[in-house]
Amino acid sequence: MRDINQFTITEAVKKSFRTEEGSRFEQLLHGLIDHLHDFTREQQVTHEEWMRVLMFLYDCGQISTPERHEFILLSDVLGWSALVDMINTRGGATEGSNLGPFYLDDAPRKPLGSDISDGRDGVTILVHGKVTDSLHNPLPGAIVDTWQADGSGTYPIQEQAQGQDKMDLRGVFEADASGRYWYTTVLPKPYTVPYDGPVGELLRAGNRHAWRPAHLHYIVRHPGMAAITTEVFFEKMDYLENDAVFGVRKSLVAKVSPAKDVDALGYEVAAKPDAVVEFDFILAPES
Amino acid sequence: MRDINQFTITEAVKKSFRTEEGSRFEQLLHGLIDHLHDFTREQQVTHEEWMRVLMFLYDCGQISTPERHEFILLSDVLGWSALVDMINTRGGATEGSNLGPFYLDDAPRKPLGSDISDGRDGVTILVHGKVTDSLHNPLPGAIVDTWQADGSGTYPIQEQAQGQDKMDLRGVFEADASGRYWYTTVLPKPYTVPYDGPVGELLRAGNRHAWRPAHLHYIVRHPGMAAITTEVFFEKMDYLENDAVFGVRKSLVAKVSPAKDVDALGYEVAAKPDAVVEFDFILAPES
Repeated sequence: MRDINQFTITEAVKKSFRTEEGSRFEQLLHGLIDHLHDFTREQQVTHEEWMRVLMFLYDCGQISTPERHEFILLSDVLGWSALVDMINTRGGATEGSNLGPFYLDDAPRKPLGSDISDGRDGVTILVHGKVTDSLHNPLPGAIVDTWQADGSGTYPIQEQAQGQDKMDLRGVFEADASGRYWYTTVLPKPYTVPYDGPVGELLRAGNRHAWRPAHLHYIVRHPGMAAITTEVFFEKMDYLENDAVFGVRKSLVAKVSPAKDVDALGYEVAAKPDAVVEFDFILAPES
Repeated sequence: MRDINQFTITEAVKKSFRTEEGSRFEQLLHGLIDHLHDFTREQQVTHEEWMRVLMFLYDCGQISTPERHEFILLSDVLGWSALVDMINTRGGATEGSNLGPFYLDDAPRKPLGSDISDGRDGVTILVHGKVTDSLHNPLPGAIVDTWQADGSGTYPIQEQAQGQDKMDLRGVFEADASGRYWYTTVLPKPYTVPYDGPVGELLRAGNRHAWRPAHLHYIVRHPGMAAITTEVFFEKMDYLENDAVFGVRKSLVAKVSPAKDVDALGYEVAAKPDAVVEFDFILAPES
């Protein structure tokens, strides 16, 4: 291997990994090495630039904790997370969008019609819709797991020091026999992704802001169907056109309507809504 | 930006960075985004694979300290460091090779002919040669900064807890009026790069060993010339054909000869050598 040069080194590195021929690991590793080396040759990367990239990754590592995952944030602002979401959206199903850093897998089950805002300030909204397959057949018992920021753009998990409960503004609902789900909550506000670390530095270097449009997070599941992780946004609200993490899709933007006909919907709800948001989830088969 | 899809997102992300048109930052950032997104589309990366990569980077960050830089190690085993070295070698100059993690920028100045081994066990070698420009003109006063592992493959900086001095097996020499340098030391042994972290896991997953062939590290400088960072290896020794970090170049492999004609070289040396290693460094102009 002493005869390698800047053109032959790529094959030498790939060969040095004695991976199972054709395995997925080999495909991904070879693809990664090819792109890394091509990038380096195309850009004629200098030692200073190479070290800058490595120190950036080092700094991302130093600021990361189980609660603050700077590499996911980096993936988000480079549109990598969004691209993976897009590629993995199944035909006919609701489009996927960012999981984000605030999901907890042990949020409390709540009865349909609950209010998950605990009387927080802001606009009270009724959120409702149906969970179906792509032929509009309802999926009774589908699980709708939701979490969100409050009316000032803060997630309770971020403010535990100020006495908020990390389980606030979360709920796991089971759709009824017609696949319907409904609950009330507070309309969330836009907020910024963390920009006090290396990724924030990158945003500033590119004259980019750190704002996300207001949204509700969802994971929706049903036996035999592929679970979807997605977000619901609101028409005419800020940052829909320049979400810092590229999470918005046209199909995920819901209308917010005045609550004049709430009674006609026939839902029992714990809090009187000011407005109504309707969003239907469509799941595709698992296999 | 709500109209983006898996094909248009790449341009949207590039545009979101309002970088100076044509700037180096823009070139590198756009190149990086293009390759990351192309890789993802080509490989149809799944959520699990995406998260595996992010957790790998997270783990690299967690094990990293100022003394243990797992990202440089990752760059090394992927041949990225070597490729950057190759691209940045100037025509006519000695080829560059890995800086590695053990360089200290405040190693002690030592007189020519010193022994930097402090009587360590092993084969004592006389290392000598000339520092010239590419027309063979000597560069008097050139600085030859060297560091190395010992006769068992360990760097003193790694063994400080066992009473070794981190400045052992290092020296900064100033070439004489003819551009010559010479000193004695112990012939280093092969050693492994750290494989107790995520990069070690990657090596094991690819059935790769962590060994590097024995080598001496150098940074050579002279006013007006581009400094070179490189390594000198030894003919017929182990791992020349499968260095874990792809540092070996044909032109960097030196001959190790029995010390029969040392007196004829006319050097004053502090220790009697068993063998002789000759290596000339060629520097190219800075601009």
